Parts: sequence; structure tokens; C-alpha cells
Amino acid sequence: MREVAVIGIGMTKFGDRWESSLRDLAAEAGLLALKDAGVDHVDSIYVGNMAGGQFVGQEHLGSLVADYLGLTPVPATRIESACASGGIAFRQGFIEVASGLADLVLVIGVEKMTDVSADESTGILATAADQEYEALSGITFPGLYAMIATRHMHEYGTTIEQLSAVSVKNHRHASKNPNAQFPFPVTLEQVMQSAPVALPLRLLHCSPITDGAAAVVLCPADKARSYTPAPVKVIGSGQASDAIALHGRKHITTLAATVEAAKAAYKMAGIRPEDVDVAEVHDCFAIAEICITEDLGFVEKGKGGPAVADGLTDYGGKVVVNPSGGLKGKGHPVGATGVAQVCEIVEQLRGSAGERQVPNARIGLTQNMGGSGGSAVVHVFEVM
Amino acid sequence: MREVAVIGIGMTKFGDRWESSLRDLAAEAGLLALKDAGVDHVDSIYVGNMAGGQFVGQEHLGSLVADYLGLTPVPATRIESACASGGIAFRQGFIEVASGLADLVLVIGVEKMTDVSADESTGILATAADQEYEALSGITFPGLYAMIATRHMHEYGTTIEQLSAVSVKNHRHASKNPNAQFPFPVTLEQVMQSAPVALPLRLLHCSPITDGAAAVVLCPADKARSYTPAPVKVIGSGQASDAIALHGRKHITTLAATVEAAKAAYKMAGIRPEDVDVAEVHDCFAIAEICITEDLGFVEKGKGGPAVADGLTDYGGKVVVNPSGGLKGKGHPVGATGVAQVCEIVEQLRGSAGERQVPNARIGLTQNMGGSGGSAVVHVFEVM
Repeated sequence: MREVAVIGIGMTKFGDRWESSLRDLAAEAGLLALKDAGVDHVDSIYVGNMAGGQFVGQEHLGSLVADYLGLTPVPATRIESACASGGIAFRQGFIEVASGLADLVLVIGVEKMTDVSADESTGILATAADQEYEALSGITFPGLYAMIATRHMHEYGTTIEQLSAVSVKNHRHASKNPNAQFPFPVTLEQVMQSAPVALPLRLLHCSPITDGAAAVVLCPADKARSYTPAPVKVIGSGQASDAIALHGRKHITTLAATVEAAKAAYKMAGIRPEDVDVAEVHDCFAIAEICITEDLGFVEKGKGGPAVADGLTDYGGKVVVNPSGGLKGKGHPVGATGVAQVCEIVEQLRGSAGERQVPNARIGLTQNMGGSGGSAVVHVFEVM
Repeated sequence: MREVAVIGIGMTKFGDRWESSLRDLAAEAGLLALKDAGVDHVDSIYVGNMAGGQFVGQEHLGSLVADYLGLTPVPATRIESACASGGIAFRQGFIEVASGLADLVLVIGVEKMTDVSADESTGILATAADQEYEALSGITFPGLYAMIATRHMHEYGTTIEQLSAVSVKNHRHASKNPNAQFPFPVTLEQVMQSAPVALPLRLLHCSPITDGAAAVVLCPADKARSYTPAPVKVIGSGQASDAIALHGRKHITTLAATVEAAKAAYKMAGIRPEDVDVAEVHDCFAIAEICITEDLGFVEKGKGGPAVADGLTDYGGKVVVNPSGGLKGKGHPVGATGVAQVCEIVEQLRGSAGERQVPNARIGLTQNMGGSGGSAVVHVFEVM
């Protein structure tokens, strides 16, 4: 396998993008990434998108995006793995460059969610849960994650203050991110008094409905410096699956797919969790970030709550988690999220993250997952 | 890149499978392919599916299928490219084995289409057309292909008898395929007198709505004989995109994505069109097979109509096209089709196709496309 590097990144402003259609958003991010990489052609395109068919009546997104970017007849493939669609699209791009079949690959993640009502959107997102056993029974994702949170509190003594600390941290980070949907801080009190959604989860424990896109350009690592002075190498990639229904899992407080994906990524990268300086992880709900910091091995199992409350996952701590603001603060256009995570880590490793810069960041990690954790993908990046 | 071989195949009966859900169908085909390959584990899974979200309210199909097959935590990725979803899923499996990341890959194509009405199904399929310019204006695929047919008749003098000869040939082939949805012959008169759908296309010029799944197992070619005495090597793979809207194309009677995908596949395989003994192609409508036989280079542009009427694409002709019965006779569960094509070609190259056997078949080809041709993927196979 050839080594692979990221040579270009681009993302749109996340939020209510009523003026832009799905194809507009994809093209906007794609063109920014091509410009950043300094290339006007690619050999292959991957599009990460969860539910274009349901949100805007458009499947067949690979060719649509290739056409709208003026890049036909380049092969273009759409990847879907619920909210992990972007991260897994990135992995497919990585595999294609690694294989030698393509030299330049453009990966775009995109979702256009606000053309339907919030109610409809929640129903569409629920098609990432087990339709026959979960969704048909009426449960949607806030309820599924509320069960995980309740059990985590029971098993490990995690508190509502600790859950709320995730949101406070990520909103603070988002306040320094001009592309964030919610670029403002919130207080612990505001989080804990926000409207109940599925208790213990309240509105400010939940990531929003968002329009947006993000894109990256990949190439073989040994050619990367001919495109950019600051390439970032992909040193590890891992992906795994788990039962998509909560009742099919051994422990609902452990995200087994994340554990396995991280194990594979760490092994390929030849690093340990403590080597990671900065990480973008899938905080679709506050409890998710707590489980993930445990399941990635950043902290001991059950200690994710105290860790975030004590600042161990913030600037000055062990590892900075979600400097972009995460899904909570930056927004969560589901198919775009995994690619946007890569954009942030590349900024951090380039040293171009401005006010959000993690000092001396050398090794970065992304963790993106689908549904309540039924699929997960982890990538590790290093300064070249 | 490592060389890749197919070591196992399996497919379900195609048709109205009211007793089986999407996951049942995927598991049925997957287990048959694993059994055929003689393996009980794989390193990676790809699931080709166009519209599980719209047809049965289920996205996130990679993990669902991995779980239902008892194969978690294996990475599992869903690929969508409208009706080319299966063929492109196969290509992703090919790339992953070629890259060296995985040794054993299971590729499953699946679609469950009969849980909604035929009207709804037609609307769902139309989300593979350009939603903003085609589908919203009310046109669906029979209408799009009717325009292609009308123009082909105008430019090349193609006749309704020639179009109908495609259906007669493919139904005759299907009559020898126990997995076919329509295992019976039809006469030229029956085709030409069938109910009008979008003239010149009548009911028997159109592929049906179908439930079904197909699966294959891939491994590195140099390990293939340790699994099976009759591996089939993948010697060429090509994929391309085109404008998904007809009005965006230079010529609507040339499927440019198919031309480009074939060029890439022939180049990788080091063969010419005339070297192909047997081909499974995407006859979603009769006119499509005529265009495809031209665009693959089997016959001169414009001569596809006379070729099928004269038997050049039948047993005893230049190349046997759609010995399985094709989409018209075998059925067209859209996400499954591209993988089912591979199953048939493997049977033919193994020499195990029974009554459908093409004598002395050494080189086989599959051509699978999405929408009205906006995406296309071509693979070339050879007896090892």
C-alpha cells in the first residue's frame, strides 16, 4: 500500500443554508479544496452523504457532483453509512490512493437537511437506526442516546454537570470558528436549564440540524510536497461495524465499533492513544463524546465524565477534543461531518487553526460514527 | 496493485419476494456466496443499494448487513450510484483487495422494491434522475429512455422490431434461468402489442420492479486456488460519470460514461471488444441494450438494432449478451443488478451455466449503469 497525504481542504459555512441546494454546497466545498490543493483535475471522487434521497429527493450523488464541478467523466462514488458517511468516504479515497489506482482523489461530504421540517428530519435520521426493531417502535436518536446516558450515569456515576461540560467546552471552541453554526459560548447553567428533549438529554446536549459540506484532496505521500508545502500524512485508518440496534449489544455504554476502529487505526499508525495531541470526535449528543473519549483510550472506561469536567480534554489538558466546536457547536450536516473533522485536524497539524490552534500539535485523530454507534471510522494524521 | 479473483457467488431468486425483508435477502445471498467460497469470515463488506431509505425506511445498510450475517465488527460500507450501486460496490471491493488492505471481501447487492406501490417505486427511482431539472418536471425513467429511443430511431433508422428483438432474446435466455423473475419466452408480436408505457417503449421493453440480492467473495488472485478449483480473475475495471440529466449531454444516443468506463476497463485488461465472449449489460429498457452494445464497441455506432435482430448478440453470434436474461427477463432489483451480472459471468467462465452456457467462454464482461447513464462501471473477467 502506498502512503497517502491530505493536500487540500475546504468547507462551507455550516448552518441554515437556505440559499444553497445540496449540489451548491458540495460544489462550494469541493472547489475550495481543489483551490487549496492547487489542482484543477482529479482521478476519482467520493461523496459522503447519508440521505439525499429522503432529504431532497436526490440519489445518484456521485455523478451529480462530478457533473456540477465540471469533472465528468471522472469516476464518482457516493458512500453512505449514516452519520459516518463522510469519514468512510474519506477512507475509500484513502484506499483508492493507497491501491495505486488513483493519484488525486477528491472526497466531499455533504448534507442538505433544512429543506424538510425538523420533525421530518428527525424521522429521516431515524432510518439510520434499526428500522424493524427501533424506528418502527417510535424511538429516535435522542431517545437512544438518552438510554446510553442513563445507563452510563448508573454504571459510572456520571453526572448531568459532566454531560453539560461537554456542551460548554464545545460551544466555547465553536465561538472561535467562523464556519460554526453556533459561534458563541453557553454557560453550564444555560445547558442544564435548556428544554428537555429526552431526559437526561436537553436541547443543549444535542447536536443540531445543519446544512453544509466539507472536502479534502488526497494524493500519494511521496508526491504531496509538489502540491503543497504543508501536507498532512494519513498514518492510520480503521473502520468497524456493530449491531445497529442497541438491544443487540453486549454493553450499551461501550461503543464497540469505535473501540475496534481505533484499535485498527492505532495499529496501522504505530501509536498509542496518549500520543494523540488533538482529536475531532462524534459528539452528536454530549454522552457520545464521553463514551468516545473512553473508547478511544484517552481516559479509563467510566472516567469520561470527570475528564471533561476537569478539563483533561480541553486546551492545556491531555488531548484537545473537538477544537472545531464539534458537532454540537460547529453543526452536524450528517454526511459532511466526517470530512469536516479531517479539515479541522489538517488545519491543526498545519498550524493554521488561528485562535483554535492547539500548541505543538503533531498527531491528530478523527472519529466519526453512524447511528448510535453501529458503524465507526477512525483516522490518524501526522505532520510530514 | 494486487491481482484480484472471484472465489464465491450467490444470488436469491429474483421477483416479488414478499416473505423476505431487505436484510433477509442480503443475508440469503451473502451466505450463499460465503458457502460457495468455502469461507466463514471476511475482512470487509460492501453493500450496493440504491434506495433502502426510501423503499423500506432503512439507511446504514453496511452495518445492518454485517450484523445480520453475524460478521461484526468487520468494516461494512454501503455504496450508492442509483442502478449502478451493485457494480460500483464490486469495484470498491476490487480496489480494497488490490490495495492490500483486505484479503477476503464480501460484496452484496440488494434491493427490496415491492414494499411500496408501483407508482411510489417509479417516483423513488426518479430520484436517480436530476431532481431539480428532470424529476421535478415530472419525467420518470421510461420517459427519459423513450427520448433516447426516439432519437436513436431518428438518427440511425432503428426500428420497433429491432427494439423488440432485445426483449425476445432476453426473455428466451431467462426461460433457462431458475432465478429469473420472468422465466418464460415472449414473442415479437407480444412485445410489440404490449401496453404502451412511454412510446415507443411498451411494457415488454421495460425491466420490472424486483426484490432480490446477489453476492460475491473476492480475494487476491494468487491465493484464489486455495479456496476454489475454479477462480475467475478480474482483469479490468473502469468507472465513469456523465451529466445525469439528458439535456447536459452532447449526444443522448451515446452513453458517454459507458464509453469511458469500457475504455478504462479494456485498457487495464489489455483486450479489445472483439475478445469478449459473453457480456451482461444493463438493459433497463430495450433501447439501453442497443446503445450499450454500440458503446462497448461490440458493434458499430448505430448498428445495435440490426445486430440484435440478426442474432449477432445471441448464442452463435459475435458475443452473447445477457445470457442470464438481463434486467428484462431476470429482473432488476436495482442495487443487486451489478453484482448479479458478476455472478452470471462467473458461472459462464466456470462452465457451470447449464442450459445457458456459452460454449468456450474465456473472457466475460459486465456493464452496469445508473439512471439514464450518468454513471457506469465495466468489469472484465477471465478464466484463470
